[in-house]
Amino acid sequence: MGLLEQTLSQIQPLDLALATPAQARLDQLTKPRGSLGRLEDLAARYVLITGKARPRVDSKVLFVFCADHGVSAAGVSAYPREVTAQMVLNFLRGGAAITVLARQLDITVKVVDLGVDADFDPQSPGLIQSKIARGTANLAEGPAMSRAAALRAVEVGIALAEEVVRHGAQLLGVGEMGIGNSTAAAALLSAFSGIPPEELTGSGTGIDETTRHRKAEIICRALACNHPDPTDPLGVLAQLGGYEIAGIVGVCLAGAARRVPVVIDGFIATAGAWVACALRPEVKDYLIFAHLSAEQGHRRVLAALQVQPLLDLGMRLGEGSGAALGMSLVESAVRLFNEMATFAEAGVTNQD
Amino acid sequence: MGLLEQTLSQIQPLDLALATPAQARLDQLTKPRGSLGRLEDLAARYVLITGKARPRVDSKVLFVFCADHGVSAAGVSAYPREVTAQMVLNFLRGGAAITVLARQLDITVKVVDLGVDADFDPQSPGLIQSKIARGTANLAEGPAMSRAAALRAVEVGIALAEEVVRHGAQLLGVGEMGIGNSTAAAALLSAFSGIPPEELTGSGTGIDETTRHRKAEIICRALACNHPDPTDPLGVLAQLGGYEIAGIVGVCLAGAARRVPVVIDGFIATAGAWVACALRPEVKDYLIFAHLSAEQGHRRVLAALQVQPLLDLGMRLGEGSGAALGMSLVESAVRLFNEMATFAEAGVTNQD
Repeated sequence: MGLLEQTLSQIQPLDLALATPAQARLDQLTKPRGSLGRLEDLAARYVLITGKARPRVDSKVLFVFCADHGVSAAGVSAYPREVTAQMVLNFLRGGAAITVLARQLDITVKVVDLGVDADFDPQSPGLIQSKIARGTANLAEGPAMSRAAALRAVEVGIALAEEVVRHGAQLLGVGEMGIGNSTAAAALLSAFSGIPPEELTGSGTGIDETTRHRKAEIICRALACNHPDPTDPLGVLAQLGGYEIAGIVGVCLAGAARRVPVVIDGFIATAGAWVACALRPEVKDYLIFAHLSAEQGHRRVLAALQVQPLLDLGMRLGEGSGAALGMSLVESAVRLFNEMATFAEAGVTNQD
Repeated sequence: MGLLEQTLSQIQPLDLALATPAQARLDQLTKPRGSLGRLEDLAARYVLITGKARPRVDSKVLFVFCADHGVSAAGVSAYPREVTAQMVLNFLRGGAAITVLARQLDITVKVVDLGVDADFDPQSPGLIQSKIARGTANLAEGPAMSRAAALRAVEVGIALAEEVVRHGAQLLGVGEMGIGNSTAAAALLSAFSGIPPEELTGSGTGIDETTRHRKAEIICRALACNHPDPTDPLGVLAQLGGYEIAGIVGVCLAGAARRVPVVIDGFIATAGAWVACALRPEVKDYLIFAHLSAEQGHRRVLAALQVQPLLDLGMRLGEGSGAALGMSLVESAVRLFNEMATFAEAGVTNQD
């Protein structure tokens, strides 16, 4: 049995055994019941996901998967293809948004090359080099990846997530970098959700209306020529996805299998999350959607997934920037759950 | 000239001189323009407030002002009056929500007794003892405070904020604790905004519908017997407010005078912010509203103030818990502004 199948077989529905004791503890903490709002829901879910009555968030790891896209040649982005590789170097030097946020919020960032169209110095410190190909083929002309290549990328994501969990990671996050990848994400999300491409085609890094219409047409062509079958999620991923999106799928699956929550970034990471949920619907309960992206269509997609994002700050950068902020909120929720005094401990008179 | 008048005279309109260079820097950072959404707006505003081209957020201080309310005897809260003092001790021991969040987010909490109905040990470590009275009088029967007492509480807030700013605080936050204070806050906000009390009367710490109606009636009575005149904000504060709310007013004014941003917590802190803005409308530009509270009426009040909160997590605890999360977002915004590489520095190809 391959790593993917093995991982899928280990994913269990959320164990609800701890729901009652978790709620009981929340109700004994020195605050009016429910007054921490969604932070209370988050803490309770964290308990159920991890299966630990008093879980902790001492180690947070965020993966930034990077890859290029054949479709970038069709002019679907405001930036040229070489920006993917340039941004990888920016991540490694700490000058990108995600690396700034990670320093503030005490998150370990793992930068992973799964398919960047560039040769990096094999000694590049901090870069995980797992390149499968120098970018995908153009999804508008046929499959973006072979099924085998997509599977390999998913399994790299699984293996990396399992490794950091073995080393103590208690909260995972996923982000991405790849010029052209909002086109791939919109195609995937349209194929799975049935929402028309036009409604899921946003301005990405900042394209004008003419380019946006071309982008929507390209997605229509991609759907027409690939005939994606949503009941075969790995096949759809291979046809329409990208290597970095496949890596995200892997982390989502491994997180669910290992009972470690995975915080999802924006529009593109949501496409990876959807593939993971299509492979095994139970995965959804292990995922936390960090924020509502300003990218057109994200709201509809999250509604279709029946999930509610934590933040709405008009962000649309990717890289895991929204996930980093969300991970900090999850840490807040779990710390409140663990560290607040109960009414009895603090000698505070309770409502009853 | 007293401290209040002196502080009011020092408040200037936002200096827009740095708006263009701040935007220019934001547009040169390695990200698509505008893609950090509201974090970019926050960073730009932070530059304008501080008047520094490259401001920093190395020191964050949050005040939790505590006081009791005469109206608590009327049964407007789900908790008895003694909980105010009990929670002060919980703050000092680090077992309350705000103290847990402050530890995570590297915020210094200053707990201030401005009017708690209890005698604390004069040596209580960490407690700033500036008690003006053991609680207010019942606002439904006459003025809650004398004008002189309200002024003193405002000036304590000013003096405390000035002291921490002198010692290097670069970002201030305000929260509160006081059983009964959502009644005072609703009365104040109704007097200033003209929104009917019934629409601003929420369930506070968790009262039932019957109690909520009684609470709304009490607020109506308070407005009827005090005849608040919104053109005399200090007078309205004295009639309807509380000592902790007055402290918040002081911090808002001092922040504006010293050009240090002040992050406002929820419903009750917003009442203090409104009084400060009524005293000097320019103050509003120095305030950052952290979150939309679940307390009924907060949405309407923020809309009336024409401000947009950063977070919407269904929180309604007070203490500064929402402000703490907001302060972390402000820090994120300023760090991104300062620490991200420009396109030129990182050798990343720009859109143009």
